[in-house]
Amino acid sequence: MPAQRTLAQELASKQREISVAEFFERNRQILGFDNPLRALLTTVKEAVDNALDACEEAGVLPEIRIEVTREGTDRLKVSVDDNGPGILRREIPNVFGRLLYGSRFHANRQSRGQQGIGISAAVLYAGLTTARPARITSKIEEEEAAHVLDLLIDTQKNLPKVVAEELTLWDRPHGTKVELLLKAKYQRGRQSPFEYLKGTAIVNPHARFVLVEPDGTRVTYERVSTEVPPLPKETAPHPYGLELGELGYRLKASSRPTLSETLQRDLAGVSARGCREVLDRCGLKGKEKPSEIHGEALERLLAALHEVPLVPPSAESLSPIGPMLIKRGLRNVLDEVRPDFYAPPVSRPPKVRGGFPFTVEVGLVYGGSLPADQPVQLLRFANRVPLMFQQGACAITNAVQNLDWRRYGLEQKGGAGLPTGPCLLLVHLASTKIPFTSEAKEAVAEDPEIDKELTLALQAAARHLKTHLSRRSRRDFAEEKFAIILKILPKLAAKTSALVHKPVPDLTPVITKIMDVVHVETTVASEGGGPEIRADVTNYTPRARVLEMFVEMPREMFPAGTFTPAPDGTDPELGRAWWTLEKLVPSARTRVTVRFPKGADVDAGDLSWYLAGIDEGHVLGAEPQPGDWDIRLPRAVIEAAEAGLAPEIVAAEEEVDYDAAEGSAKIDDDE
Amino acid sequence: MPAQRTLAQELASKQREISVAEFFERNRQILGFDNPLRALLTTVKEAVDNALDACEEAGVLPEIRIEVTREGTDRLKVSVDDNGPGILRREIPNVFGRLLYGSRFHANRQSRGQQGIGISAAVLYAGLTTARPARITSKIEEEEAAHVLDLLIDTQKNLPKVVAEELTLWDRPHGTKVELLLKAKYQRGRQSPFEYLKGTAIVNPHARFVLVEPDGTRVTYERVSTEVPPLPKETAPHPYGLELGELGYRLKASSRPTLSETLQRDLAGVSARGCREVLDRCGLKGKEKPSEIHGEALERLLAALHEVPLVPPSAESLSPIGPMLIKRGLRNVLDEVRPDFYAPPVSRPPKVRGGFPFTVEVGLVYGGSLPADQPVQLLRFANRVPLMFQQGACAITNAVQNLDWRRYGLEQKGGAGLPTGPCLLLVHLASTKIPFTSEAKEAVAEDPEIDKELTLALQAAARHLKTHLSRRSRRDFAEEKFAIILKILPKLAAKTSALVHKPVPDLTPVITKIMDVVHVETTVASEGGGPEIRADVTNYTPRARVLEMFVEMPREMFPAGTFTPAPDGTDPELGRAWWTLEKLVPSARTRVTVRFPKGADVDAGDLSWYLAGIDEGHVLGAEPQPGDWDIRLPRAVIEAAEAGLAPEIVAAEEEVDYDAAEGSAKIDDDE
Repeated sequence: MPAQRTLAQELASKQREISVAEFFERNRQILGFDNPLRALLTTVKEAVDNALDACEEAGVLPEIRIEVTREGTDRLKVSVDDNGPGILRREIPNVFGRLLYGSRFHANRQSRGQQGIGISAAVLYAGLTTARPARITSKIEEEEAAHVLDLLIDTQKNLPKVVAEELTLWDRPHGTKVELLLKAKYQRGRQSPFEYLKGTAIVNPHARFVLVEPDGTRVTYERVSTEVPPLPKETAPHPYGLELGELGYRLKASSRPTLSETLQRDLAGVSARGCREVLDRCGLKGKEKPSEIHGEALERLLAALHEVPLVPPSAESLSPIGPMLIKRGLRNVLDEVRPDFYAPPVSRPPKVRGGFPFTVEVGLVYGGSLPADQPVQLLRFANRVPLMFQQGACAITNAVQNLDWRRYGLEQKGGAGLPTGPCLLLVHLASTKIPFTSEAKEAVAEDPEIDKELTLALQAAARHLKTHLSRRSRRDFAEEKFAIILKILPKLAAKTSALVHKPVPDLTPVITKIMDVVHVETTVASEGGGPEIRADVTNYTPRARVLEMFVEMPREMFPAGTFTPAPDGTDPELGRAWWTLEKLVPSARTRVTVRFPKGADVDAGDLSWYLAGIDEGHVLGAEPQPGDWDIRLPRAVIEAAEAGLAPEIVAAEEEVDYDAAEGSAKIDDDE
Repeated sequence: MPAQRTLAQELASKQREISVAEFFERNRQILGFDNPLRALLTTVKEAVDNALDACEEAGVLPEIRIEVTREGTDRLKVSVDDNGPGILRREIPNVFGRLLYGSRFHANRQSRGQQGIGISAAVLYAGLTTARPARITSKIEEEEAAHVLDLLIDTQKNLPKVVAEELTLWDRPHGTKVELLLKAKYQRGRQSPFEYLKGTAIVNPHARFVLVEPDGTRVTYERVSTEVPPLPKETAPHPYGLELGELGYRLKASSRPTLSETLQRDLAGVSARGCREVLDRCGLKGKEKPSEIHGEALERLLAALHEVPLVPPSAESLSPIGPMLIKRGLRNVLDEVRPDFYAPPVSRPPKVRGGFPFTVEVGLVYGGSLPADQPVQLLRFANRVPLMFQQGACAITNAVQNLDWRRYGLEQKGGAGLPTGPCLLLVHLASTKIPFTSEAKEAVAEDPEIDKELTLALQAAARHLKTHLSRRSRRDFAEEKFAIILKILPKLAAKTSALVHKPVPDLTPVITKIMDVVHVETTVASEGGGPEIRADVTNYTPRARVLEMFVEMPREMFPAGTFTPAPDGTDPELGRAWWTLEKLVPSARTRVTVRFPKGADVDAGDLSWYLAGIDEGHVLGAEPQPGDWDIRLPRAVIEAAEAGLAPEIVAAEEEVDYDAAEGSAKIDDDE
């Protein structure tokens, strides 16, 4: 055994600081640079994330060009340029050549990049594998020329080293371009830039991307929305979930004169009244200097902040995609799949964890040519960025796997794991701080609060699926029958009439007798002004019908619509309007129209139609009124019942039954 | 749109450096502090890893005490102390209060801690959740008193803040103690300190641990080996897998006068001859100043270093557990399970990736009361540390799942995923640099080189299992029969003899007739001197037998053994000795003894016995000579064959067949 003193001293002499760049250079797998395939994707992803963030901050519609070219056998040149605001000359070296340097870490609002690591890590990896500097071109609007800097990272110091510099003319009025030469591999497939951009396009429908692949193939992802999403606002942290140490630091660092002021100004959700209640409960006066609160007083203060009901966290710092754009984004990409069913996208109200607000959105698509014998496709997103790797280690995947999908009509071995079926799930987690499992930002870490919201959102989407599937099975038969009848009967009638030399009779009564359904057919027209969605309702049943009709659309579309006839009621908050239709005798038809102003970007799929007052087995082309809609029993149904039209009352009762069943299923789920 | 200039400047004004402590405080899930349960385990793990590393550096047998006590509803006090060399007063604050500060990052040798993050992260988490400082007590041998420091981390600066200090008397002659108060949860179960220490004890059989749980339960893990593993040596990085940028930095930073000297001294595996060949191939002279090599010359140099055959990486910087200690560690912990079969542990020769050597070890245990209808238990280890979380995201798990275990006799749905069966797998990856997926060091990232070695090691273990299972099924019947006969026949004989008033006859000829086996029975004795392992061989077959007997033991044990009778041959490298046994007529018995010196720590299971010269269906209590042993056809068998003892020749031919079959299976695997 060596002498202990010598040893302790020897060990001490070896102690030294490790630069964060050295650390990440050695542990590059943590940043997503394990292998040439992943290194390429991570590089493209970091550059595009930065470009999108910059455009969003500037309020411009992103125009992003990604070009990958081959240089030698195992090297690729990656070039990404954007029309963002550009970067001041003096900041360029630090932004691209220094890890843990950035502008968004301390801003408490949703953004793609936050940690000031990503793009510098790509520069580090490029230098490591090819020893070539990164080339940055950047131009701000008023300057005539763009700055071009070649830079490397001094890993021992974690500082940028500019090795060449010049000015150049650039055709972009403003923007930034990054060019990197790295050891990498290009390959189309599940984890390629091609797929990454496809996913990015779904959740960033306002952006336009051009990808030039190494073989020269040019892929363009056009925007489907021309609205720049509003820039989320910076907010103070919310006390819910704040830890003791965090609160302590904040009070110690506060420059406000009193505790009371600090609580109200430096934390979110603490109103004057809430503040008084908190102070009362913990026995503080509020006039104390914030830095003087520590020890037991600090503990009482935090307990009080957690117990007193405060204003819930605001969604202002978040930028969810929204139901309409989720649906449209999915439709844009899934067009060739022709799915049977787009579930109404689910958006959960914002919640808070550790002082940071977050929200979950879920889209679900079913049928069409999606493969029926494969696990469902899961598209994971965090702050509008697709997560391409580590699906197995992600809390989103776990939430999907832990749901019993058999209850909602999908196959699932043992009630756990990814379900099987022609189904695609989009899950988006938006937060001012996403808890990623590593700096590569490819998987979300487990968190009970997030898991709960994911599960509730998935359940809501799954319930829509279940409703669709159970209806479909009942209606499939009727629809098939209807299609055959509408095709064969007129031919038969024409042939027979010709044979007996009589005029072709009106077939509606016959169809009515055979079908016994109310049929809703929607069409899009554009006469004179803007787009117009028409719903024609035909009563192919042998009875007179008094029906209540509902339309539902994304809330943001609602104000632009005008309705004919005038609706009997509207709920702009929920995006709904409803009518009691004129009494329809057998074979009669009526029409409801929703017109939008010229240039509005609308299609038939944005509107959903519902009918009440008839048993759902007798409806084709619309949905029965969902049981969980809190709308009173249609007046018309009650009137019709009073007038002795018995069948409708039965139908209404069935609705009520269904309602109760759904309700109980929901209670069960939410536990 | 806001004016671009203002915006670019506004963005620039927000740019700032992020301290690594701030970064990790906010992203504490990356370090393994997601939730109270995991936070506890991570804290214990980091403290114990440091304690083990310190003891190993000092060459002392570790004595580590872990105490967890409850303080309030959701807080635990964790105290870990060791008998390591202690830490100099001036280094204590930095070691415990500064992230990315340490002594092992730049030492190219295997150690548990490397990054200078772990224990400081625990101090950070404790401060964050309870606002209480960490208390560090440390004593080096010559000083009479221990230093006690209370410290916190200033996260904005990533620097330690000592808040109190004193001297105290401590009963340890030298060592270190860490005490932390943190928000945490104690719970026995799969991911508890209890299980973590159990795993740690398996792969650190030289350490002794005492765990005091919050309810006062005291668990002791005794050491089963009294040898301190040799401290791995620091080595220079090996050129295989070195990246261009890395080589460039090293040359630039070199203070050697010539390139030739740098290559030979600062890289491993470059001999004078290798160096000349490399220089010839890339057209350099070797007299250049190392810092002058860049651009194209650098690329040619690296290519040459990758092409020229160099001395393979040495294992000196690694500290594998070794087959004997793997077997003993497993047996120590699995005793109550009474497994049927411990496969000979597999140790792969060291390989290199990215300049860093690594090696893979695999232990496999089968049968006993291990659950037969559950997935196999997988114990993952990296540098002698159990990996407790993120099993699904780990390259070790992936390698296990990607092997087709059905070929080796285990059930596995679809030939992928974790197989099912009463089986436990221990997989240890040792390297001077483990590529973890995150700083929490809970899963190994995917790497093709590591995956290949994992697969080869698992296949080797799986082949042992397959051999065992196929033999077992053939022998089960014979063994059962033997047991019944040995139990019933003597009783029957005694009874009958008593009835007819005759002496009990010798039953051996009868047993021989019925059984037709050679039986090997091993016993451990300790007469006079040290432990003695005896193998008694009885010929219960109706023919005279000339047999070759082999014993195999861990190489490190071999020199200590003395053999009676003197063996006909030995191979100390492989730990084997062999004998041609005297000719055994039916019912005859002979004995082979291996004796070890007094105090040697040996048990029967450390030795494996093999027989050749007889068909394996006729052996009980030993294994037939494995087909892949490169030992010539036993001389005695040939002689016996020449003497006209036909059956043995048949047996020998069967051996050859078996050999060929194994050989082809192996080629198939290694592809």
